[in-house]
Amino acid sequence: MIIVMSGAARQAEIDAVAARIEAQGLAAHVSRGSERTVIGAVGQERGLEPAIFESMPGVERALRVVSDYRIVSREAQPEDSAVRIGDAMFGGGAPAWLGGCSHDWSRQALAGAAEKVWAAGGRLLFAGGARHDNPYRYRLFGVAEMEALAEAAAARGLAAVAELSDPRLLDVCLELDFAGLLLPPACLCNVELLREVGRVNKPVILQRNNRSTPEEWLLAAEHVAAGGNHRIVLCDCGREGDGAGLDAGELAWLHRETHLPLLVAPVAAGGAALAPALAAAALAVGASGLLLELDGDAALAPSALLAGAKHG
Amino acid sequence: MIIVMSGAARQAEIDAVAARIEAQGLAAHVSRGSERTVIGAVGQERGLEPAIFESMPGVERALRVVSDYRIVSREAQPEDSAVRIGDAMFGGGAPAWLGGCSHDWSRQALAGAAEKVWAAGGRLLFAGGARHDNPYRYRLFGVAEMEALAEAAAARGLAAVAELSDPRLLDVCLELDFAGLLLPPACLCNVELLREVGRVNKPVILQRNNRSTPEEWLLAAEHVAAGGNHRIVLCDCGREGDGAGLDAGELAWLHRETHLPLLVAPVAAGGAALAPALAAAALAVGASGLLLELDGDAALAPSALLAGAKHG
Amino acid sequence: MIIVMSGAARQAEIDAVAARIEAQGLAAHVSRGSERTVIGAVGQERGLEPAIFESMPGVERALRVVSDYRIVSREAQPEDSAVRIGDAMFGGGAPAWLGGCSHDWSRQALAGAAEKVWAAGGRLLFAGGARHDNPYRYRLFGVAEMEALAEAAAARGLAAVAELSDPRLLDVCLELDFAGLLLPPACLCNVELLREVGRVNKPVILQRNNRSTPEEWLLAAEHVAAGGNHRIVLCDCGREGDGAGLDAGELAWLHRETHLPLLVAPVAAGGAALAPALAAAALAVGASGLLLELDGDAALAPSALLAGAKHG
Amino acid sequence: MIIVMSGAARQAEIDAVAARIEAQGLAAHVSRGSERTVIGAVGQERGLEPAIFESMPGVERALRVVSDYRIVSREAQPEDSAVRIGDAMFGGGAPAWLGGCSHDWSRQALAGAAEKVWAAGGRLLFAGGARHDNPYRYRLFGVAEMEALAEAAAARGLAAVAELSDPRLLDVCLELDFAGLLLPPACLCNVELLREVGRVNKPVILQRNNRSTPEEWLLAAEHVAAGGNHRIVLCDCGREGDGAGLDAGELAWLHRETHLPLLVAPVAAGGAALAPALAAAALAVGASGLLLELDGDAALAPSALLAGAKHG
Repeated sequence: MIIVMSGAARQAEIDAVAARIEAQGLAAHVSRGSERTVIGAVGQERGLEPAIFESMPGVERALRVVSDYRIVSREAQPEDSAVRIGDAMFGGGAPAWLGGCSHDWSRQALAGAAEKVWAAGGRLLFAGGARHDNPYRYRLFGVAEMEALAEAAAARGLAAVAELSDPRLLDVCLELDFAGLLLPPACLCNVELLREVGRVNKPVILQRNNRSTPEEWLLAAEHVAAGGNHRIVLCDCGREGDGAGLDAGELAWLHRETHLPLLVAPVAAGGAALAPALAAAALAVGASGLLLELDGDAALAPSALLAGAKHG
Repeated sequence: MIIVMSGAARQAEIDAVAARIEAQGLAAHVSRGSERTVIGAVGQERGLEPAIFESMPGVERALRVVSDYRIVSREAQPEDSAVRIGDAMFGGGAPAWLGGCSHDWSRQALAGAAEKVWAAGGRLLFAGGARHDNPYRYRLFGVAEMEALAEAAAARGLAAVAELSDPRLLDVCLELDFAGLLLPPACLCNVELLREVGRVNKPVILQRNNRSTPEEWLLAAEHVAAGGNHRIVLCDCGREGDGAGLDAGELAWLHRETHLPLLVAPVAAGGAALAPALAAAALAVGASGLLLELDGDAALAPSALLAGAKHG
Repeated sequence: MIIVMSGAARQAEIDAVAARIEAQGLAAHVSRGSERTVIGAVGQERGLEPAIFESMPGVERALRVVSDYRIVSREAQPEDSAVRIGDAMFGGGAPAWLGGCSHDWSRQALAGAAEKVWAAGGRLLFAGGARHDNPYRYRLFGVAEMEALAEAAAARGLAAVAELSDPRLLDVCLELDFAGLLLPPACLCNVELLREVGRVNKPVILQRNNRSTPEEWLLAAEHVAAGGNHRIVLCDCGREGDGAGLDAGELAWLHRETHLPLLVAPVAAGGAALAPALAAAALAVGASGLLLELDGDAALAPSALLAGAKHG
Repeated sequence: MIIVMSGAARQAEIDAVAARIEAQGLAAHVSRGSERTVIGAVGQERGLEPAIFESMPGVERALRVVSDYRIVSREAQPEDSAVRIGDAMFGGGAPAWLGGCSHDWSRQALAGAAEKVWAAGGRLLFAGGARHDNPYRYRLFGVAEMEALAEAAAARGLAAVAELSDPRLLDVCLELDFAGLLLPPACLCNVELLREVGRVNKPVILQRNNRSTPEEWLLAAEHVAAGGNHRIVLCDCGREGDGAGLDAGELAWLHRETHLPLLVAPVAAGGAALAPALAAAALAVGASGLLLELDGDAALAPSALLAGAKHG
């Protein structure tokens, strides 16, 4: 960590910062510049909290030098991770996909989505993705929905991935023996839930939208990994709300920064009309696959999307 | 709801939109302009979902006319709500405050904060506010911390408000009979938790930062209110991360839009140095009180802050 | 335009809005819903300003139905535009590129860049792209720089494209007979400059970064087009500041919304290391070419980038 | 400046960074931590550009330690600046105000605004503030408008402040001898214009909205100051677009960071309805005055606003 003192900092304030660094078992390197004194904390900085130093008198800023994630970083593991969910393999090879329902979880809709996945040669059926923001249109993906999903998948010989947004439903997921769990973007800051799924032996797809930064996404993944579950797949849902949005620069950065497989949900990010273009862009920057919402009448051809067909 | 058709929309597509509106029990008013046809859905629009219409062929956009929140709106209740927590009354009168710890929850720190609250004439002690973003510095405000808080408050005759970020801890909160619950900003999108606190008979302070819009905040409050618990207080923690940030325009808008009491956490929003200025700004736009982090050595004088003393 | 009245709007206020709409030569369609009255202004709405209505008593919101750009929209011209700059053709066919200097404009640097462009089979040399944000490192791309650029390009038989950020330098550009003009992202809101380049007979490359929305970009292009100059090329420089950023969703949306050729500056958006991935993503969503900063030691192979080679 | 090397940086790369620092006349302090090597550049860092270092092999990040602005900083001048415009004094004493027209610049509207300013005991009339974003509703505040403003002000014995958005109009401003110049928010990145007004002997009001950060605002002011013109007043117009927005945290930070007088435009930031609340908030955090749009029928009472009357 680097602590920048304010221009008016007194020697006693500099000494106090150095003393606190040393009290935590790190070495303090004081460097006096023409306008600012800078103090480097050399050693294992992950135990230090910038806010502690920033609340000390005479301190202008405290800057971390290393990131807070380790297990999920490419620095820790240079080669791509491969995560198997059911019979589908994400990462390290050809791109893969899963398809399912994000709006309608009726038995009929799930059966229709299972049919589409099966017909397109897919192996994984998911359900989830509902937006809970409106109290008067709220519906939880709960026990009944989980049972319907398991049934629809089984009827077509597919493995199933269920949305989980409440830790109290984890037991149901385990009993129904889903092939994987899907955490929606709004749960990326639900640390208790992240820690629960970190303790189970199930692949987890961590979704994210533009509410969270790439760094926060990796920290959420680290929460899961720190619990012992390293079978993590990331899935970018793009920008929430009006208009299409999917940041290819962030995806490229993530592909360089983490070894975890990276999916994209092109329909969530851009609607059915722009989904082919966004799928192609995602694969071009290194994504390992796609999560495809097959609700409604949209005729998405997964194999064409995975081939990265150019947008017309 | 208003559905704007694309310039190239055909009559059959317009008819299909009108039919779907009528199938939901509303009337469809079709208005043909020079470049676009616009369809108004007249009736109880809260049952309609814009996304359903936006996925129909020929539709360019679907716009809501009324907001999704009702109970918490000033349109529903023009006069200010007053919410009592312990002996403190928030809303509808003189500004009030609560003080506590947001970093250190040791017995010593809690006792120190209780002492400061008591000495300043306060009545409410809170604890919570930890940031859980780092897996290696993670600490839950859990059972032991709740017990320590209850004890520290009791020792000084204060009522206590405990952070709650996991629905599984709600029973502990009820057993310890806290005067109120404090939901941190990251829980604003945790709908399951919002619904749980909507079912209990306890005042709830809903915190928010710039990750959520004012509308989303009111929708989260509506989730609580829809469950039957109308004892809701809002508390704005300002902008997360680097630099000071507290949007006075949003606060003014909220004060006009909702009857709920509105607090501000000036230390979270701007640090101890700028907290007096931000407290004054918040009171100037209609805030009903302050939540004050009293950690560390910062010498904040609650009575001076509440008096809205100008920034030096 | 659609005017949503507040729930408490009185009849006289509704009448006043309708009267103002009719005074502008449009028809007013009043539609009374259960909670709000909505007034549609049917006719040529581009003459109406939402702010005028939003300042009238009883009005909650005024929403535009059609966009403010026309000439540059795909609705006005469904087929792709092709814009020739020197011997390079952008839009409607194979992707093309231009290369140049964005930091160092010395004769040596410009000659080096010209050499690289020539060696890679390119035809267009540009210079520009400096960030002017620091008063103490400020350097204008001025007359001397323009002359040096013209000379460096001529020495290798290339056409030249010069940055223009001040309308008073337009005459110099015309005298030096550059093949095209390059407007930096910060000039997208410089309407006087846009209008000047709208009056000349030179291709214009309009750069943009994340400071401006896609709609604002198209409005800036419309400013140029409205002056009579339709030889416009868009160039997305991605997100400014820290980290890589290039929104593939916005690019896909733009490709659908406008017929203008769309370039991407992958080095500006992601640095030399991520440029290949971002170039591939851009071409995947329909970009017509690349603007490549060849400063420094970065060994970018334009032909490989244009082939959309996957990121390693 | 602090250069953080990547974890895999080799000794030769570290040496190259140190050599470049020393070549610029600064000293390089190399500090080897457990995971990263950090190099401090000690000396006059304003000549260094982070981008130069970030493009060198083995470099992860380059961080500035001191800000790029000097003249306008409170570090350079601890006491508040006072800037006289006509007979009004901004900064260092009681808050002051100017009033005028931001939409309608007709002779009638200007005369009406002058009347309102005069009746309220004001001394300064401004005109400007038009949004130029729409090519079909574009109107420049040009020569005719400037003459009309000068005339309207003179008729009531007021001093006048004219919007300037094109450097080619500066001569007209000087001929008409306006008391001050008003640069609209969109011109904050128009460096050529900033430099022109830096060379004249006229007070300049630099407006800003949320498109620019507080740091960028101060850098724009530094551009003006670096030219020799230190008579600079800042004016925050709040958040552009939908909804009210005015960041009190940023204002408080600015008041601490710069000695320049800070105004707020509460009508631009929040509309006439919320303007009183926003004016009170701005004065609470240290603003030196208000810029009041008096267009239309809104009955704003400047003296009540300046008294910081609480929002009802």
